Amino acid sequence: MSTRTETDSFGPLEVPSDKYWGAQTQRSIMNFPIGWERQPVAIIRALGAIKKAAAIVNEDFGDLDADRAKAIQQAAQEVIDGKFDDNFPLVVWQTGSGTQSNMNANEVIANRAIEIMGGTIGSKDPVHPNDHCNMGQSSNDTFPTAMHVAIGMMARDTLLPGLRKLHAALEVKSEEFKDIIKIGRTHTQDATPLTLGQEFGGYAHQVAKGIERVEACLPDIYELAQGGTAVGTGLNTRKGFAEKVAAEIASITGLPFVTAPNKFESLAAHDAMVMFSGALKTVAASLFKIANDMRLLGSGPRSGLGELILPENEPGSSIMPGKVNPTQAEALTMVCAHVMGNDAAVGFAGSQGHFELNVYNPMMSYNVLQSMQLLGDAAGSFTDNMVVGTQANVERIDKLMKESLMLVTALAPTIGYDNATKVAKTAHKNGTTLKEEAIALGLVDEETFDRVVRPELMIGPKD
Amino acid sequence: MSTRTETDSFGPLEVPSDKYWGAQTQRSIMNFPIGWERQPVAIIRALGAIKKAAAIVNEDFGDLDADRAKAIQQAAQEVIDGKFDDNFPLVVWQTGSGTQSNMNANEVIANRAIEIMGGTIGSKDPVHPNDHCNMGQSSNDTFPTAMHVAIGMMARDTLLPGLRKLHAALEVKSEEFKDIIKIGRTHTQDATPLTLGQEFGGYAHQVAKGIERVEACLPDIYELAQGGTAVGTGLNTRKGFAEKVAAEIASITGLPFVTAPNKFESLAAHDAMVMFSGALKTVAASLFKIANDMRLLGSGPRSGLGELILPENEPGSSIMPGKVNPTQAEALTMVCAHVMGNDAAVGFAGSQGHFELNVYNPMMSYNVLQSMQLLGDAAGSFTDNMVVGTQANVERIDKLMKESLMLVTALAPTIGYDNATKVAKTAHKNGTTLKEEAIALGLVDEETFDRVVRPELMIGPKD
Amino acid sequence: MSTRTETDSFGPLEVPSDKYWGAQTQRSIMNFPIGWERQPVAIIRALGAIKKAAAIVNEDFGDLDADRAKAIQQAAQEVIDGKFDDNFPLVVWQTGSGTQSNMNANEVIANRAIEIMGGTIGSKDPVHPNDHCNMGQSSNDTFPTAMHVAIGMMARDTLLPGLRKLHAALEVKSEEFKDIIKIGRTHTQDATPLTLGQEFGGYAHQVAKGIERVEACLPDIYELAQGGTAVGTGLNTRKGFAEKVAAEIASITGLPFVTAPNKFESLAAHDAMVMFSGALKTVAASLFKIANDMRLLGSGPRSGLGELILPENEPGSSIMPGKVNPTQAEALTMVCAHVMGNDAAVGFAGSQGHFELNVYNPMMSYNVLQSMQLLGDAAGSFTDNMVVGTQANVERIDKLMKESLMLVTALAPTIGYDNATKVAKTAHKNGTTLKEEAIALGLVDEETFDRVVRPELMIGPKD
Amino acid sequence: MSTRTETDSFGPLEVPSDKYWGAQTQRSIMNFPIGWERQPVAIIRALGAIKKAAAIVNEDFGDLDADRAKAIQQAAQEVIDGKFDDNFPLVVWQTGSGTQSNMNANEVIANRAIEIMGGTIGSKDPVHPNDHCNMGQSSNDTFPTAMHVAIGMMARDTLLPGLRKLHAALEVKSEEFKDIIKIGRTHTQDATPLTLGQEFGGYAHQVAKGIERVEACLPDIYELAQGGTAVGTGLNTRKGFAEKVAAEIASITGLPFVTAPNKFESLAAHDAMVMFSGALKTVAASLFKIANDMRLLGSGPRSGLGELILPENEPGSSIMPGKVNPTQAEALTMVCAHVMGNDAAVGFAGSQGHFELNVYNPMMSYNVLQSMQLLGDAAGSFTDNMVVGTQANVERIDKLMKESLMLVTALAPTIGYDNATKVAKTAHKNGTTLKEEAIALGLVDEETFDRVVRPELMIGPKD
Repeated sequence: MSTRTETDSFGPLEVPSDKYWGAQTQRSIMNFPIGWERQPVAIIRALGAIKKAAAIVNEDFGDLDADRAKAIQQAAQEVIDGKFDDNFPLVVWQTGSGTQSNMNANEVIANRAIEIMGGTIGSKDPVHPNDHCNMGQSSNDTFPTAMHVAIGMMARDTLLPGLRKLHAALEVKSEEFKDIIKIGRTHTQDATPLTLGQEFGGYAHQVAKGIERVEACLPDIYELAQGGTAVGTGLNTRKGFAEKVAAEIASITGLPFVTAPNKFESLAAHDAMVMFSGALKTVAASLFKIANDMRLLGSGPRSGLGELILPENEPGSSIMPGKVNPTQAEALTMVCAHVMGNDAAVGFAGSQGHFELNVYNPMMSYNVLQSMQLLGDAAGSFTDNMVVGTQANVERIDKLMKESLMLVTALAPTIGYDNATKVAKTAHKNGTTLKEEAIALGLVDEETFDRVVRPELMIGPKD
Repeated sequence: MSTRTETDSFGPLEVPSDKYWGAQTQRSIMNFPIGWERQPVAIIRALGAIKKAAAIVNEDFGDLDADRAKAIQQAAQEVIDGKFDDNFPLVVWQTGSGTQSNMNANEVIANRAIEIMGGTIGSKDPVHPNDHCNMGQSSNDTFPTAMHVAIGMMARDTLLPGLRKLHAALEVKSEEFKDIIKIGRTHTQDATPLTLGQEFGGYAHQVAKGIERVEACLPDIYELAQGGTAVGTGLNTRKGFAEKVAAEIASITGLPFVTAPNKFESLAAHDAMVMFSGALKTVAASLFKIANDMRLLGSGPRSGLGELILPENEPGSSIMPGKVNPTQAEALTMVCAHVMGNDAAVGFAGSQGHFELNVYNPMMSYNVLQSMQLLGDAAGSFTDNMVVGTQANVERIDKLMKESLMLVTALAPTIGYDNATKVAKTAHKNGTTLKEEAIALGLVDEETFDRVVRPELMIGPKD
Repeated sequence: MSTRTETDSFGPLEVPSDKYWGAQTQRSIMNFPIGWERQPVAIIRALGAIKKAAAIVNEDFGDLDADRAKAIQQAAQEVIDGKFDDNFPLVVWQTGSGTQSNMNANEVIANRAIEIMGGTIGSKDPVHPNDHCNMGQSSNDTFPTAMHVAIGMMARDTLLPGLRKLHAALEVKSEEFKDIIKIGRTHTQDATPLTLGQEFGGYAHQVAKGIERVEACLPDIYELAQGGTAVGTGLNTRKGFAEKVAAEIASITGLPFVTAPNKFESLAAHDAMVMFSGALKTVAASLFKIANDMRLLGSGPRSGLGELILPENEPGSSIMPGKVNPTQAEALTMVCAHVMGNDAAVGFAGSQGHFELNVYNPMMSYNVLQSMQLLGDAAGSFTDNMVVGTQANVERIDKLMKESLMLVTALAPTIGYDNATKVAKTAHKNGTTLKEEAIALGLVDEETFDRVVRPELMIGPKD
Repeated sequence: MSTRTETDSFGPLEVPSDKYWGAQTQRSIMNFPIGWERQPVAIIRALGAIKKAAAIVNEDFGDLDADRAKAIQQAAQEVIDGKFDDNFPLVVWQTGSGTQSNMNANEVIANRAIEIMGGTIGSKDPVHPNDHCNMGQSSNDTFPTAMHVAIGMMARDTLLPGLRKLHAALEVKSEEFKDIIKIGRTHTQDATPLTLGQEFGGYAHQVAKGIERVEACLPDIYELAQGGTAVGTGLNTRKGFAEKVAAEIASITGLPFVTAPNKFESLAAHDAMVMFSGALKTVAASLFKIANDMRLLGSGPRSGLGELILPENEPGSSIMPGKVNPTQAEALTMVCAHVMGNDAAVGFAGSQGHFELNVYNPMMSYNVLQSMQLLGDAAGSFTDNMVVGTQANVERIDKLMKESLMLVTALAPTIGYDNATKVAKTAHKNGTTLKEEAIALGLVDEETFDRVVRPELMIGPKD
């Protein structure tokens, strides 16, 4: 492998000739041979956005000359555009401030800017990774900013679209199923009826609220740490730097980022992410319930509940011919369980800041971004491959509903709870119908029974 | 023990004569000999509020005659007032819908109402626990309503007051310490300076945001399931019942409760509680960080960081004479870790609804209410017994700040990052001062050094 | 309230005259008004055992005179016997080392010993809580010892008996159901058959392994920190003290306690408890699965799977007459979810030791002991009130099994996976039987079908 | 892209010509566009081992002819050797049984075996992925077997070597530091002394116990589900198949795998993995404590505790010149927090089996394997880059120790706890030494003080 020499304050190091990173990135590769999880692409692109924004503002303040500023902006834009994704080799399990990924961005952009300006890559001249690319910045404010920017973009581009697609599909089903009266089940046991549309309406409402909850947590994510530099004071920045950089990042990303009101909090804690992760966990709890219900309602085809007919997407078994399984529900529930684990990790890490810095940055952002990607993707896949194609097994639903003993509940206001209990218990014991037993016990006449015990009147309050 | 006979649909049972509960409560005592955790008092009082509200509305609709309605309302008010706390013996680990605690309320109120009306306790006449006290209600909507009412009240009465007290005290300290410049610490290592006031300001901001987050989650808690009855349809209620009951509960409690827009969701899922618990977890992460910082900054008295002088509240050791420990920080961090566990349990349980009902009600409410009680109490105790009495060790702070090598950061814009690094490393190696080495290395003259390296200029952005 | 004056190094305090505790206990009541969770009785009794054991050993070494030693031993025995449970008012949320509960024990025992010896309660003469009751001890080794002793005893007395009872009942059911062939379900969908006995045999095996896992973790619990005193060095003890105290505790409790090989680890970390909690969580995962399966298999009575007939223990609904619910499964699954939360809290706290001490003692032991109590109790209740009375609905089981399309799997070795798939899919589409379609498709003749597709041959490997 | 046509029971599909996978793999790619996490390589290699073992046993039983058997074995060996890693494109978030990854293995091996035998890839002739490669197997037993095999191998090859390396290094340090007496710290406050060697000995003991705990959980991992086929009965296998396959896998891997005693449990639950994950979490708690202690003890260089001199591995800050941070401790503590989250996810998923199958397989194995990889790697990196190079700052340690007031504890047996308290408190108030105040208070003479208060006598029990 062809290499060139790069240098940092610890000395020279050989790096691959075809890469733009420098000595600190290379040193991190050597010092952290841990795991297989790289910094997510979303973080890398967000670092690009920050570096570009800072260069614009530094030029504006007159601290960075126009030539360097333009070269840095062009290089940073290329990072934003994904042209250098393969120049960010570092793993999640590095310095807890994300310093090395920030330096990776500084080094790649510096070398690319040097190249643009006709200099020698690795010379740090005319563009220095620290003095120019990192001007007015510290890893301690930059990486937290990158986390928020990445989360904001992934919410808009992946998580919310996935949830909205699912929500829309559940609403469609709720409408489609609105006239299908079915048995309700509480405690997994037969209960009073409702419509299948109402059941799906509950699911849709859960997802709608989930979207609301995610959106309600975004404003805190839109607050950026940038401008706090090393410990939150803003040392080595100018007044107004923080606000201007946030405005540039907003412009670059199209999201309403603003500067955080308290930079000490932004560096030392990541409560906004802990809270956001809690919203993701809540979404996970919702989706778990929906997916689990649907697979149980679609269980069978012959020996389960069998109320739903789920789409068949692939052979279900390597040994049982003809078997079809609710695999989308399985992928989604696995995702939901995983998101709960991620949330536990995020909460723990969020509590562990020391003094002016929390050093669990890459791990926290990895977990939150993974949860978002997985929920968004899985919600979309579950919608496309399961919800949309789900049909009601109307015949089966009707049969189960009509046999149910819990229709007796409609009688209670007429004959009292204790008598109604007698009717249900006797019918259960004898394997008969409610009507037979209600009349046989002399508690009600046929006309009254037929007037009162009507499933279509049991699916809402009475006038 | 003197007993009387009470009856339910399973038959007669002996209950203690001096208690108002009936057969179903007694049966639950017998069937669930599990653990030592009783239903929290907050739940019992909330059930009282619901029963009173329902009796008012049922009377209003003409479904319940005035005599019974008044007796039930009086009895329910006594439950609200805490007169019957010792008549609610059931543990958390019962039916997952909380049915037996709902029946406990129905039975106690029915027997007390019978007593008020001059009837025979246990006769169910003239007041029947199901037909009258539970009129228009099911455990499936009543218990979730009780959970939300209890949470709403505990937020107002315990959690938020505790957090607000802590916030106010931290703000006072932030102001008190605003002129004390100290060394910052990132990665637990010496970093650039900030004021102790800024540090405490970060803490205060965390708590302020925590209060905001809790408040932002309350509107979903204010949505009540009542009126959904068994499966969410509102069977056996009248149109308007749900809205009127919510309004009565709002009136009784003084909190803005409203009826939930989708009762199917309210019964089958408890996402609002999962989200609320996520906010509690976020508060826990914040408080953990604050308490942990304060004990480390107050470590010593002679061999620690020693920047804070923490109040001495009690002898610290049974073996080491004169030892004083940051015990309030310990109680608070234990609480925070416990709340994180509770949150994990709540998230799990929240995902486990089946069809029309989630049957983890008592466990979820127990965990959420416990988290609230503990955070509120511990925040208050931590404030009173630790924050308020914390003093700055000004001499020590000043000494540590002035010795720090990280003041070199102020030089970097003047001499460049690489040269500044040389200064710091040389001073570290030689055990000398930055100034000595900066001048010796010929990188800066004394006048410039003294002008640039001034801690009081390092605590904010430059103009 | 009548009071007397007690004193500690912080000064005098009034304590209730009818209680034996002293100033440090009283001070803790005042300083920690947090929550409602008291130190578990198991911890209090364990502290009694330690104090008795230490007095015996100190007398043996000649460091404590016989009169004082005897009085302390008698008083400590009374604590062990539960006579002073109401003299331990402290909450969990106190000093993280449990210092105040250790002092509570020292104070109660000292005052009771003073009383026995004819002295004046509160005088610390002739028995001093620190100098005599705490002789050779520190809270830092005593409380961790109490935690282990309490866990050991609760394992023997509550947890393991509950699990063993459940295991035995499941074994009985496995044998009782061994000839009932039923449909298997994988992915919640119909699969190949097995016997109901095999299904319950799987449950029984899970519980058997759970017992094994708990037992495998006990030896680490049997290792006691006592003798490490303040920081693990054993300062202020004599050589052999640690070993002798452990032997005395073993003698008092009847459990094989020994001294821990490394006291630094015993004080600074509680890995043995983290691991033990992991075993409890594993048991919780097992029991959750069993309880959840049983309620789903017993769902109905008419519109569910209906393979099991679960015992009816109480009225199931306050609104639906005649409803019976799997309430024991609900209590147990709530317990299991709660135990998972406790485990998360314990793992977190276990990681948070600083230097020579972990200060999450009372919280960790509270969580572990609660998990044990709940699992033991709930396993017992679930056994008595659900497993023992569960019956097979043989008719229903037979019907569901015979209708299943997955019996086609037996044909695959004969006609190949792809042809067998065709048979199943065609029968599914046409609503016909496998046999009809297999013959109609010309893939097998009737004789072969009848010879091969026999459920009773499908429940084990072939010869 | 060049493609060929592959077929499954759902119809034909185009797959890339240069890949060996078939239609079911391709269908999974299309149906599960979720996330970026692929099946770990360890799972793929384990599937190779299973397929080879099964082919050997099937040949041995005479069910598979020698030609096909040899070809399958050769192809499977190539999978084991990693030659087909890029032929396993499937993500974790697929069917919960791992069916599609099992089919991926069957398809790749079948096509490769066809190629070896001179057939046409994609023809399923002469080697069929189900009938031959999957002979006597179901995904339901195969994937759980692969999980256990992968875990067993990763324990041996990555996790345990990493932990053993760390243990050895800590032991070396414990010995190296055995004569350095330092101040102890409890509650983060000054306490009685111990040696730095004792402190590191505690760390070493934690790791030693962690290794023991992992090893103690391995026998359950060595139990394989293979032979249970679809629901645990072993349908479509021969008697002895399970045992023989386990023996072959043991031979291939060099690990003591055996057949599981109860296959119903092996398929429907993954308690062994839940327990194993609990052991990993316990290790994480240990390593967190060690890493956190070391960074705090090494805090500074001038304004922290400064007792340890940590190795400098890279520039620590992008803004603060000369800063060096305990980055290895940060990577390790991030890993530990992440492992705790993984454990929560694994426990949850482990509880969620339904009837004869748990369908959280790929997610559970992903989490457990990730935890193992991360702990093993991070322990190794932490050892190499931090522990080995850590030095004691002897001068600083000595200074802090000698100034401590907690040396007074040695006086307590002589002058009593209450008098010793007075000495410490007075010295603290006056900023004087213990000796000065002890004599001034007339509690002890100089000779006695000098004889009793000797740190070198305070680091162990007295004779």
